Amino acid sequence: MVKKRKLGRGVAIVGAGMSKFGMFKDKDSKDLFTEAFNEMTASVNKGIDPNDIDALYLGNFSNDFFMHQSHWGPIIADIIGTVPKPATRTEGACASSALAFREGIFAIASGFYDIVLVGGLEEMSKRTTEEVAEGLALATVPYEGRAGFTFPGVFGAIATAYFEKYGANREHLMNVTIKSHNNAPLNPKAQFKLTIRDMMNVKVESAKKKGLPVTEWIDEKDFLRDPRANPVVAWPMHLYDCCPISDGASCMLLVAEEIAKNFTDAPIYVAGIGQGSGRGLHACKDFTYFEATRYAAQEAYGMSNLKPEDIQFAEVHDCFSIAELLHIEDLGFFEPGEGYKAVADGLTRLNGTKPINTSGGLKCKGHPVGATGISQLYEVWTQLRGKAGKRQVPIDDLRVGGAHNLGGTGGTCTFTILERR
Amino acid sequence: MVKKRKLGRGVAIVGAGMSKFGMFKDKDSKDLFTEAFNEMTASVNKGIDPNDIDALYLGNFSNDFFMHQSHWGPIIADIIGTVPKPATRTEGACASSALAFREGIFAIASGFYDIVLVGGLEEMSKRTTEEVAEGLALATVPYEGRAGFTFPGVFGAIATAYFEKYGANREHLMNVTIKSHNNAPLNPKAQFKLTIRDMMNVKVESAKKKGLPVTEWIDEKDFLRDPRANPVVAWPMHLYDCCPISDGASCMLLVAEEIAKNFTDAPIYVAGIGQGSGRGLHACKDFTYFEATRYAAQEAYGMSNLKPEDIQFAEVHDCFSIAELLHIEDLGFFEPGEGYKAVADGLTRLNGTKPINTSGGLKCKGHPVGATGISQLYEVWTQLRGKAGKRQVPIDDLRVGGAHNLGGTGGTCTFTILERR
Repeated sequence: MVKKRKLGRGVAIVGAGMSKFGMFKDKDSKDLFTEAFNEMTASVNKGIDPNDIDALYLGNFSNDFFMHQSHWGPIIADIIGTVPKPATRTEGACASSALAFREGIFAIASGFYDIVLVGGLEEMSKRTTEEVAEGLALATVPYEGRAGFTFPGVFGAIATAYFEKYGANREHLMNVTIKSHNNAPLNPKAQFKLTIRDMMNVKVESAKKKGLPVTEWIDEKDFLRDPRANPVVAWPMHLYDCCPISDGASCMLLVAEEIAKNFTDAPIYVAGIGQGSGRGLHACKDFTYFEATRYAAQEAYGMSNLKPEDIQFAEVHDCFSIAELLHIEDLGFFEPGEGYKAVADGLTRLNGTKPINTSGGLKCKGHPVGATGISQLYEVWTQLRGKAGKRQVPIDDLRVGGAHNLGGTGGTCTFTILERR
Repeated sequence: MVKKRKLGRGVAIVGAGMSKFGMFKDKDSKDLFTEAFNEMTASVNKGIDPNDIDALYLGNFSNDFFMHQSHWGPIIADIIGTVPKPATRTEGACASSALAFREGIFAIASGFYDIVLVGGLEEMSKRTTEEVAEGLALATVPYEGRAGFTFPGVFGAIATAYFEKYGANREHLMNVTIKSHNNAPLNPKAQFKLTIRDMMNVKVESAKKKGLPVTEWIDEKDFLRDPRANPVVAWPMHLYDCCPISDGASCMLLVAEEIAKNFTDAPIYVAGIGQGSGRGLHACKDFTYFEATRYAAQEAYGMSNLKPEDIQFAEVHDCFSIAELLHIEDLGFFEPGEGYKAVADGLTRLNGTKPINTSGGLKCKGHPVGATGISQLYEVWTQLRGKAGKRQVPIDDLRVGGAHNLGGTGGTCTFTILERR
């Protein structure tokens, strides 16, 4: 039983921004953060003077490894002009900026600061795929990465366990992939802009033009089953089960609840926060759930007095297709072993009863790891303000959404509930 | 003018521990943290059940680089048994664990948690000196490290500027070194246990035994002037101006003020916290002060309603001898340009009017960078409880001490004021 917790002072989001996600040879971390920051300032409709920002929290996983540069707090404080005010980096692997968001909340709720910028960034695409895999493996526990267990292998093992326990199979993973690819073209910031059907057509047209033999796939699953189109990475994780290598940045302006209306007509409020930790796969008796996610969820539900059924839609950490299935169960949206059936029934589609990863998810929006946590919150914030355009969740009176972020092999998990009042 | 800030809820330290600092080929980060944690639990005289710890904050600079392992929050949560409760890593270069301490305070002051463990660690000695220099340079801003400016060079440039502006010289730096070496033998955790006079005797005895020519130095400064005994690293930084490469860990148990007496008869209270950021040397018109330290100091003084003259003793970030001179001025203990005279007059000695670095400082206690911030607070906590043994500050009614931590080339600075009530 997780203890029920409260903040002494409420916190609201009054602005947010994110860069486009993708592989950018001509942009560095500073360019990407600037892009996010400029969108954030423009989104605060009554205006924000950067001089009024009291502190910065910045999530970054390991630009140490990827870019041979650490200590990003003051570098970003410099470019946005908040020096000599404090700048603190948080790291929790792929959940690094969800931790920055949480520390920003504590800093305000403590009464010490009133206006805090939280953000995240990662610059990965300048390294080779092999180097990125090596860098990401720094986030596993020593028993995993050092033994040669990189992330596709970890999630392959998790998928196998889930299949075995609940009778799911690769076809069910494909439902997650197809959904993510259907949502992403509606998100102008997403790294991948094509549905699986679009991809099929592209490949057919390309083969025809080159005079090569043409494969005409029957449907998306036929395409995803074809090992030439969708090769195996670490069984049962195939290429289209895995998120890409990405560069990107995200940020959010948090203020004390009582001053939120000074900044915007449309504040979004932090209803619940939760964070948990995990020991890694070597210590798990059962690979089919993440203890850290369950803990984080209970903490957030406890604070918010909300239940899983109250969360109208959510962004969920889908670094691999199987992760989305586990997490929608761990968060209580579906019973253990029922997640894959719910996805098969279309419940998590944009027009389903519980839309998941309307942004396209990590799979298609992209996953610049340190930027991801706040980019998920950005999507929830956007949806709650009714500003999601073609991917707007078609639910009347959209008021409550959740964002779930996972780091490492479940070492760090967060769940955050936002609400419009 | 720095805004006056307050916490909504007071925070107390009810226990602390640190490993021995040194170069340990047979101990890893987990061993070192365990050593610190065990001392911490023993120091809580009414007892602490680790199950009651609500959250962990852990400072680490870049075990990513040094040990090819990131994401240390959950690894440490695992060994101390707090999983699935949250574990968050903070990074601010050499100030990484001072940031963990601060986030622990915010987490409690926010009302969300009541009992938080904060700590720090770094494991550096398994890498070569050249690799450590390269790793530490990740903490400079890109204009510095990438241009080949490593830390001895940075502080050499700062020393040159200070000499030029205020008329100081190398002899004044030697006073800092001699003092640190006089304090360290009184600290059982220190990496270096010899005074400069001891070093002289060791070298003389060793030469005599080997039948080599014997240099009989007149006094400590004669020894420090001798380039064979004290070779130049980056002028005017000589070997004895520079802190060593170290491994170590430190931790502290923080609780809400109102429950502190449930844990110990002798809580030490957090009177003031401050943190600032800086842009790096390329942006400084004047190298003789750190804007980030001055900002941090003003924030901490503002919160505590204390003045520099109220701080009876302090730990100050002396990664290089010159850093101590700048910081005792930046913290307001002495006027700009007067710090080196105060040290020459003996005011900062253990029996002076303003004892500085009674622990031996980074120079002699050692500097496992991620562990340093909380190790400084550990010294202040120890002194305020009257438990510092032979290095106990001989001031009646010792009630208020400060700890100052610097990261990078002034990118991150913190100042914390602790008090016994």
